[in-house]
Amino acid sequence: MTDRARTRAVALDWGTTRCRAYLLGDEGAVLAERQSASGIMAVSARAVAEGTPSAEVFEQVFDELCGEWLAAAPGIPVIACGMVGSNRGWAEAAYRTIPADLSSPGPALTQVRTSAGVVVSIVPGLISETALPDVMRGEESQLLGALARTHGAPGGTHDAPARTHDAPGGRDADERIVILPGTHSKWARVVGTTVTAFTTCMTGELYALLMNDSTLALLAVRADVPDWEAFERGVEIATSATGYGGILNTAFSARTMVLTGVLAPEQVGDYVSGLLIGHELAGVGASWLAGYPNDVLLCGSAQLNDRYRRALELQGVTVTLAAPRPAAAGMWHVAVAAGLIREPAVVGGAERAAPGPEGSGRDGSI
Amino acid sequence: MTDRARTRAVALDWGTTRCRAYLLGDEGAVLAERQSASGIMAVSARAVAEGTPSAEVFEQVFDELCGEWLAAAPGIPVIACGMVGSNRGWAEAAYRTIPADLSSPGPALTQVRTSAGVVVSIVPGLISETALPDVMRGEESQLLGALARTHGAPGGTHDAPARTHDAPGGRDADERIVILPGTHSKWARVVGTTVTAFTTCMTGELYALLMNDSTLALLAVRADVPDWEAFERGVEIATSATGYGGILNTAFSARTMVLTGVLAPEQVGDYVSGLLIGHELAGVGASWLAGYPNDVLLCGSAQLNDRYRRALELQGVTVTLAAPRPAAAGMWHVAVAAGLIREPAVVGGAERAAPGPEGSGRDGSI
Repeated sequence: MTDRARTRAVALDWGTTRCRAYLLGDEGAVLAERQSASGIMAVSARAVAEGTPSAEVFEQVFDELCGEWLAAAPGIPVIACGMVGSNRGWAEAAYRTIPADLSSPGPALTQVRTSAGVVVSIVPGLISETALPDVMRGEESQLLGALARTHGAPGGTHDAPARTHDAPGGRDADERIVILPGTHSKWARVVGTTVTAFTTCMTGELYALLMNDSTLALLAVRADVPDWEAFERGVEIATSATGYGGILNTAFSARTMVLTGVLAPEQVGDYVSGLLIGHELAGVGASWLAGYPNDVLLCGSAQLNDRYRRALELQGVTVTLAAPRPAAAGMWHVAVAAGLIREPAVVGGAERAAPGPEGSGRDGSI
Repeated sequence: MTDRARTRAVALDWGTTRCRAYLLGDEGAVLAERQSASGIMAVSARAVAEGTPSAEVFEQVFDELCGEWLAAAPGIPVIACGMVGSNRGWAEAAYRTIPADLSSPGPALTQVRTSAGVVVSIVPGLISETALPDVMRGEESQLLGALARTHGAPGGTHDAPARTHDAPGGRDADERIVILPGTHSKWARVVGTTVTAFTTCMTGELYALLMNDSTLALLAVRADVPDWEAFERGVEIATSATGYGGILNTAFSARTMVLTGVLAPEQVGDYVSGLLIGHELAGVGASWLAGYPNDVLLCGSAQLNDRYRRALELQGVTVTLAAPRPAAAGMWHVAVAAGLIREPAVVGGAERAAPGPEGSGRDGSI
């Protein structure tokens, strides 16, 4: 085992439907990864079913995912982000008001201590107090991780002025748009590592509702492989004059096009996916992307990145893809900024050479 | 019992989720009404569960609703409209291509004969073969009924030229917009009783999905009385610059406004209702209503009419409400036009005086 595999921290991206646990080594390298379907919804449900406080269930899930890692490397810091910090989570963490520089220490992390004495530090979310108030939990860590790898180390070369504006307009040369596709996709405007504006689209959730529970679900046949022709047809309709009525109007065409033989039942899913992403681009995108023709950073799963990239390219927008597992990278930087991890100033220096108490961890090979 | 109560026909408005049966007297007067939750979805489910052909289940439901009426007045015509004429219905009826004059005889009604020998005649739907193809089944009968009562008898004073156009533009002085709010709300452009264009919004279905199955459902508390302030806030956001991102974007504010204390959990339902209807008006409405400031006929349930009227009035549009039970009135006219019912030319004439075979019906008092 090399120095590289020394365990330094555990990072939890604990959202509504999943918990992703990362074992981090030097410089935040992901040494191991585990997933659980025990998102905060499942935890709440289990707590109700078992009649136990949800904090106990959070601790059980945490032990199942990370118990071995912590047994092998006792005392390493544990950091978490996502809905685990919501009022339905393990402990309610703060929101930082934007503009907020993600790389600077913000409000104190919210700490929860397990019965075994392990302290879990939860990253604050972000809040945008505008006419349509907005919040994020978890995406702030993805954003920081994605920006850190794209722009270089956070707090480094970018000395970003904090500006806030909802509508497109005067723009810093350094400003860029980041899209984080997902169940609730987030659009963020950033300068360096400072978030100046963000907004949410319930695109992924609407897709699931339409394909699982709506009248369209009755006629759709699941396909194993994406049908890009159907997807692009949806994007084109949503972003053209034909889509003037919005998704409330165009969604019905998934039904009528099957009826008229224009669409096969196997194409309904990708057509609706294209409609939804297309309407996201025609709505939020048309406003947010004005003036940013070649400057979008895309930060989602490989599968969703592919869909958004295709849709954006149909609009003449080219994109940069963020490196995978940005949440883990972001939490690493937050833990360093908060002093939970002492990062060696010089690579190969004393810190790296001296095996700490966690140095015996062999979990890197898990 | 007066002549007025003589039974002349049975009309069935048989949709996806309900079947409404009407016993009609002279001039289509509704003498009695019965409802069943056995819409075509429930019929299909029952057929699968019982392992019987769905036609048998349709017949059972029909007998339960109308058996007594027909026993008391054997031989009166039975006419039906709605999804009962779809490819998941009792028998698949035709679609009429628009432009179509609803008051003129169209394609032959589709007939299905029960084991007892009762013939049920199903009204054809309408199809709009445009870039976003569209269909309706049942609303064509509501439209005809609503227009007949508003404009006078169909085929009367209005000699409407058939014109078709999707986008607003050159307009006949006689042209008007009819909105039929519902699970799938329909917007129709009509000249006299001729439908020249129509389009569908899945507004009601999206409302049900969001309030029953989405993450918003978790925080919404059901209210017994409409909160018009919350409703109007939703309409205003959706129809103002703040709503630029469409429903995908604004829906999330139902969550964040509860989080920030701007909205009470009891207001979520009406706020979301306002957002959805507002986006329908901002999307389809903005285009369709251009040039029709005071000329909208609203044809839905009393409850939905009230919501759409309020939303339209916030946009400076005044509305006329269609008389209730327009589907029954429309089917009466279709049955007369198809020769299923012989309408006396002169009120009080021979036809009215002579008791027909159906004259003994006493079901009018049911």
